[in-house]
Amino acid sequence: MAAPVETFFLDQDAQGTLQAQIQQMIAEAILSGRLPRGEKLPSTRRLSTHLGVSRITVTLAYTELQANDYLTSKGRSGFYVSENAPEPPSFKLRSRGEDKVDWGRTIGTNFTGGSTPTKPPDWRRMKYPFIYGQADPTLFDHNSWRLCALRALGQKDHPAMMRDYYDQDDPQLIEFITRHILPRRGILARPEEILITLGAQNALWLTAQVLLTQRRTAAIEDPCYYSLRDILTQSRCHLVKIPVDRGGLAPDALPEGTDVIYTTPSHQSPTTATMPLERRKVLLKRARELEAVVVEDDYDFEMSFLNPPSPALKSLDREGRVIYVGSFSKSLFPGLRLGYLVGSEPFIREARALRSVVLRHPPGLIQRTVAYFLSLGHYDALIRRIGAAYHQRRDVMNTAIEDTGLTIAGRGVFGGSAFWMRAPDDIDTRELADRLMAKDVVIEPGAPFFGSSTPPRNFYRIAYSSIPAVRIPKGISLIGEEIAAMRQTGAK
Amino acid sequence: MAAPVETFFLDQDAQGTLQAQIQQMIAEAILSGRLPRGEKLPSTRRLSTHLGVSRITVTLAYTELQANDYLTSKGRSGFYVSENAPEPPSFKLRSRGEDKVDWGRTIGTNFTGGSTPTKPPDWRRMKYPFIYGQADPTLFDHNSWRLCALRALGQKDHPAMMRDYYDQDDPQLIEFITRHILPRRGILARPEEILITLGAQNALWLTAQVLLTQRRTAAIEDPCYYSLRDILTQSRCHLVKIPVDRGGLAPDALPEGTDVIYTTPSHQSPTTATMPLERRKVLLKRARELEAVVVEDDYDFEMSFLNPPSPALKSLDREGRVIYVGSFSKSLFPGLRLGYLVGSEPFIREARALRSVVLRHPPGLIQRTVAYFLSLGHYDALIRRIGAAYHQRRDVMNTAIEDTGLTIAGRGVFGGSAFWMRAPDDIDTRELADRLMAKDVVIEPGAPFFGSSTPPRNFYRIAYSSIPAVRIPKGISLIGEEIAAMRQTGAK
Repeated sequence: MAAPVETFFLDQDAQGTLQAQIQQMIAEAILSGRLPRGEKLPSTRRLSTHLGVSRITVTLAYTELQANDYLTSKGRSGFYVSENAPEPPSFKLRSRGEDKVDWGRTIGTNFTGGSTPTKPPDWRRMKYPFIYGQADPTLFDHNSWRLCALRALGQKDHPAMMRDYYDQDDPQLIEFITRHILPRRGILARPEEILITLGAQNALWLTAQVLLTQRRTAAIEDPCYYSLRDILTQSRCHLVKIPVDRGGLAPDALPEGTDVIYTTPSHQSPTTATMPLERRKVLLKRARELEAVVVEDDYDFEMSFLNPPSPALKSLDREGRVIYVGSFSKSLFPGLRLGYLVGSEPFIREARALRSVVLRHPPGLIQRTVAYFLSLGHYDALIRRIGAAYHQRRDVMNTAIEDTGLTIAGRGVFGGSAFWMRAPDDIDTRELADRLMAKDVVIEPGAPFFGSSTPPRNFYRIAYSSIPAVRIPKGISLIGEEIAAMRQTGAK
Repeated sequence: MAAPVETFFLDQDAQGTLQAQIQQMIAEAILSGRLPRGEKLPSTRRLSTHLGVSRITVTLAYTELQANDYLTSKGRSGFYVSENAPEPPSFKLRSRGEDKVDWGRTIGTNFTGGSTPTKPPDWRRMKYPFIYGQADPTLFDHNSWRLCALRALGQKDHPAMMRDYYDQDDPQLIEFITRHILPRRGILARPEEILITLGAQNALWLTAQVLLTQRRTAAIEDPCYYSLRDILTQSRCHLVKIPVDRGGLAPDALPEGTDVIYTTPSHQSPTTATMPLERRKVLLKRARELEAVVVEDDYDFEMSFLNPPSPALKSLDREGRVIYVGSFSKSLFPGLRLGYLVGSEPFIREARALRSVVLRHPPGLIQRTVAYFLSLGHYDALIRRIGAAYHQRRDVMNTAIEDTGLTIAGRGVFGGSAFWMRAPDDIDTRELADRLMAKDVVIEPGAPFFGSSTPPRNFYRIAYSSIPAVRIPKGISLIGEEIAAMRQTGAK
């Protein structure tokens, strides 16, 4: 493919003859890596017309570049970037001028520096990836997914995919969530009470923007999902941390003045605790006293393969006090970016208006594909298949952990996809994770879950959502060995 | 398909016998529309196991419901919702309890009530849709698009689609933007200087969050894109309006203290003015004096079928002072939701961190599909096809407007997709639009583009992006007739 003629512009401020300017323009494109070796250049006729210069000027420039070995000529077929052309720098392109903006002053609000840790980018190549929250491609029903996407891409649906939804959602997806997904959680909702979001993260973010200000107080679980803490920190609200025990968040610890309570009752993140029914009722009562609303992140309910999940907290709510956050990221895959909010209409209306300003709407193709995947029953089948695999992996992992003598700090009674682990007090699991990485083992250090400058350093999370059962025993024993090795070094 | 057993829960607070509770639960599901007529119920065995009650209790409940004509029994095949079952209310589901939250107090920030107008939802059924910014399905290369999506959905790419990108973008898409799209605008950028966004709207929103605070001043064009004004109003910055003339924004009018300048130099929105090169240089000089940054919304550059587009303002920038906003929504379709930001690395880093908190990343499938569409050359072909069609429609429209004696207030010298029109001073184009709607004609009133409580009311926009050429003359003459009719009524 020839480099498109439209990609060539003469520098408006350039000095020198036209011929020199053309040579410079092309050389710069080669040096910057924009024109790779072997690429065909526009014909002298096309380039001269495009630039508005005489054809002889372009020809002279090309010939000069050929003499310098930037270009080669292949007879009548034209000019190509020479195989001997200077190699573009692999590290950094030449910048066009020097940045003269004082970005430290110009940036009004900093968003970098949150507490959300980065995951090892090459974890998929690791042999023992106890990584959390990533889908296992071997369990996914790729074929049905592709067929659903194909159907959504079909001639019949295409106009609906192309259009700007403004602030609407795909009615087919909304209908299936209303009729199929929410009833399993004991929730009855009207379409006006549901908003499709770009994943649960986006849903949580929307709640914070609508409900919180600098003068308001949010209560979060401690420990909790670090990205939620980043969202709330950025909202600049007052933040109180409520300790978590075996029954999840303790409602009695919610202080006066709390406006919004963020909780994960079904499956506390990261400790996996499930809140008992009695405590849920106490929580709702406490929220009523405080005139607070509760945001329920029901992030892992489909992975209830041991016991049927308890109904959502939202199902007990008779006052519109609970805002429910659901997601397809865990059950389908995280790259999908699709979740939803369920709440009272005045709240959903504001969240919808905000979503519309921020991003208008989640892409139609994604919404429709998921709608088909749900309505054709593939979703239920997938959940069952994932559940069966997780069940087996969990059993293997349980046994391996027992055999190795590691300590489980929390395991979901319904199932879930991970164990919350406690290493001996003198082990820093950040260091443990780094050392294990060298042995192809991925674990997640627990410190980032605690919103403290001096968090406990000996917790960690290991998930079975991305590791085949057969690899689990060896992986667990490597963790055990590494902990033992660290303790020995420490004891010296 | 039988209703899944998991969708049934007994109300935790319910009174009465178990059998009555089960009857109530099922009747409620039917009355609420959750169980439609003809739907199969779970077997008595499955439901009793699920609820943890005796099978005879469930059987008695079913039998009772059958007597009440909620259910019918089809011998051994089980129970179904009766065709005579009560009809669910079509207007509103029964709500579970009354909303007791004072949402007026609970909502911390209101996002509804912006100035972005809603478009007529049924415009596609209209015969003369001079609507702006919507793709024409008859021009789109649906087949190639589908093939690209298919490829992105293939076994090879699927793991990449499934994964959580965290704060990354699809490297293939970034590479094509760097090598193929930006050079046409005279822009040289490294991957670290590019961020993929959920459309141009999302890109503009990100710039406002990163660059503006309550103590900062943004300059916008007057008139300008209303959604941009909504974004800036929500950021609570100080907003100054700079008048637009035939050369676009007037740099001399930028007051001291301006921090960020929002502009559409290639194709002013909505007046279609193109900023001349000399003025662009003056604008950059003025920005330097003010130590301000410029956000360039290059929203329509592909639609340059009359003349080659002038290079972007960003291409003249030697100081990192210009942040460039690009989009595929106009050239592909708005439902796609894909755009990008180009700017200095410190800025892109903050925008990326914010994007990550708000929504993590645009869906992988969308990014990869567009990457294929670009790299296989379909995009260029599509732009040419759309350009040719728009060119023809524009010519037809020009003639029709002249014949009808309507007044053009602005038409892009490069092409574009719309005319900015001026009706006689005494015509309110909001009323004109409403009256035309009854005649199957969609036009866009101009008032929302002006950020004033007393905007000029006689401007309107008519686009040729969604109307076939053959319909244009009649549509234009209907506009002319309606204006004449309104003037006559006014003159009475």
